[in-house]
Amino acid sequence: MTSVTVIGLGLMGRALAGAFVNAGLRTTVWNRSAGKEVEGARRAESVAAAVGASSLVVVCVVNNDAVLGVLEQAGSLEGRVLVNLTNGTPAQAREVAARVAELGGRYVDGGIMAVPQVIAGPGALVLYSGSREAFEEHSATLEVLAEARFMGEDAGAAALYDLALLSGMYGMFGGIYHAFAMVRASGGDVREFAPMLTAWLAAMMAGTPEAAEEVVSGEYTTEVSALAMNQLAMPNFFEASKELGLRGDVLAPIRDMIDRAVEAGHGADSLTRLVDMIKE
Amino acid sequence: MTSVTVIGLGLMGRALAGAFVNAGLRTTVWNRSAGKEVEGARRAESVAAAVGASSLVVVCVVNNDAVLGVLEQAGSLEGRVLVNLTNGTPAQAREVAARVAELGGRYVDGGIMAVPQVIAGPGALVLYSGSREAFEEHSATLEVLAEARFMGEDAGAAALYDLALLSGMYGMFGGIYHAFAMVRASGGDVREFAPMLTAWLAAMMAGTPEAAEEVVSGEYTTEVSALAMNQLAMPNFFEASKELGLRGDVLAPIRDMIDRAVEAGHGADSLTRLVDMIKE
Ligand SMILES: NC(=O)c1ccc[n+]([C@@H]2O[C@H](COP(=O)([O-])OP(=O)(O)OC[C@H]3O[C@@H](n4cnc5c(N)ncnc54)[C@H](OP(=O)(O)O)[C@@H]3O)[C@@H](O)[C@H]2O)c1
Ligand SMILES: NC(=O)c1ccc[n+]([C@@H]2O[C@H](COP(=O)([O-])OP(=O)(O)OC[C@H]3O[C@@H](n4cnc5c(N)ncnc54)[C@H](OP(=O)(O)O)[C@@H]3O)[C@@H](O)[C@H]2O)c1
Repeated sequence: MTSVTVIGLGLMGRALAGAFVNAGLRTTVWNRSAGKEVEGARRAESVAAAVGASSLVVVCVVNNDAVLGVLEQAGSLEGRVLVNLTNGTPAQAREVAARVAELGGRYVDGGIMAVPQVIAGPGALVLYSGSREAFEEHSATLEVLAEARFMGEDAGAAALYDLALLSGMYGMFGGIYHAFAMVRASGGDVREFAPMLTAWLAAMMAGTPEAAEEVVSGEYTTEVSALAMNQLAMPNFFEASKELGLRGDVLAPIRDMIDRAVEAGHGADSLTRLVDMIKE
Repeated sequence: MTSVTVIGLGLMGRALAGAFVNAGLRTTVWNRSAGKEVEGARRAESVAAAVGASSLVVVCVVNNDAVLGVLEQAGSLEGRVLVNLTNGTPAQAREVAARVAELGGRYVDGGIMAVPQVIAGPGALVLYSGSREAFEEHSATLEVLAEARFMGEDAGAAALYDLALLSGMYGMFGGIYHAFAMVRASGGDVREFAPMLTAWLAAMMAGTPEAAEEVVSGEYTTEVSALAMNQLAMPNFFEASKELGLRGDVLAPIRDMIDRAVEAGHGADSLTRLVDMIKE
């Protein structure tokens, strides 16, 4: 019987451990404070005991400082694969990876692209990076949680792609929220507007592969929607938002990047040129 | 034979007039400066002559100040429907509507959700508002250009929904560009990343109807992704971006809105609560 250890029984850790139990794995858990349990899992008395119980050790705690603290109590990681599903930055992931290597273990970092409620459900995705060999050894077990995608041997890759995907999401949400605020403030029906907005965004999203080509090639020339034309339209957003008593905050960085790009002589280029404006 | 007049032969005006000509309509055009032509269309000598030639007059010039200038030369608009496809704010649309009414005409405002290249092609959409009766009288002709959707009798509605949809788009593009910048700066393959990003955004977009329900009901409680949890994760974006030599500008307004929402006591609410933070 395959065994697995889960360290950290927060919202996410409990979902992970529960999924392993449901999949019939011998599951050992450890949590810093008492009182958190997962039915069907054995609770270890110490981090070292939890690590001793399984060759696959999944850690999911609040942040990577907590992970490093847990590692101080782990003892040797000889023969162990540590899979760190704690959110953090690429640099933090590499730091944890180095510590795990010092302790004799192999390291896989992970970024969970899901909320606890959808773990082990359809659509859940976890990105992994670090030791490819260790990932492949345990991928069948990890697939219990979610689709498991390996992003590269740099331990920081999973965190990088996790943060990049979430950046895209926050940007999109910001745009959606601004659109909702405009419609609501003007007395419109946000509920009726929602499918119109998603259809429009889906249509606009269809240009993403082409935008990627532009970024890779450095060729931003366009006959469709030049930055200079977008710049001309920008004041309408701020005026209309102001008329409605709304802040223009969400759109301000886009406006500023467009201004900087046009000033830098890129007025005839497509909007995709803004990718270059994000550099320090 | 149905006749139509197009005033303004910029990139967009030429596409509109060309579409009417191709649809077999008797098309009259006028442009401020000489040299711009549309094959198959008759060029009028003056605005008044252009307006006299057709009961349906489409205006598409650089901005609404230019529209008001054109109206000064129009003479009476008795028996005319003026369809203004110039981009602007809702307040500007209402101002033009009032001027058209003074001149004895009926007014329809429009927001073109398309670039000139896709006019009369699949997927092109124009939003209209103002006189419903005038819109319905001419909707068959307007359908030549694009799908024609009537948004309400407030002349400002088309501009409002146009700007709201474009806000959503700019927000989404900002997120996509930040994501691309992160992947590129870390040496990743933006081309391979693009379909992963669009799949992720499409999945996240599926929550939009539910978000609309939250906005309409004012019920933002969540068990899935509370603002306080999102707040905790925010520093990772700025740290990781900084590690890569990238500016955090695109995400800064989201972070600031999350901070303000949590400070206002909404930490347990969903991200959708941010719609309220856009109010002045
Ligand atoms: N929840 C989500 O929607 C979601 C989605 C994707 C990724 N994540 C990531 O998953 C990780 C865990 O999130 P969560 O939702 O489970 O958070 P949570 O419910 O707040 O749980 C935090 C966990 O971390 C433990 N912990 C905190 N400080 C510790 C320390 N110094 N040493 C050892 N353990 C410590 C807590 O133990 P105590 O019980 O003793 O406090 C608890 O088990 C985070 O990195 C989060 O970003 C969460
Ligand atoms: N192009 C697009 O992708 C797109 C998409 C959606 C909406 N729109 C909107 O469509 C409208 C026209 O855009 P466009 O792309 O056709 O712009 P454009 O190529 O720059 O053409 C501008 C037009 O406005 C005329 N004009 C400027 N000032 C004028 C004045 N004071 N009086 C009379 N005419 C004047 C110009 O005449 P001259 O030839 O004499 O200069 C020209 O015909 C704008 O409101 C734009 O926002 C454009």
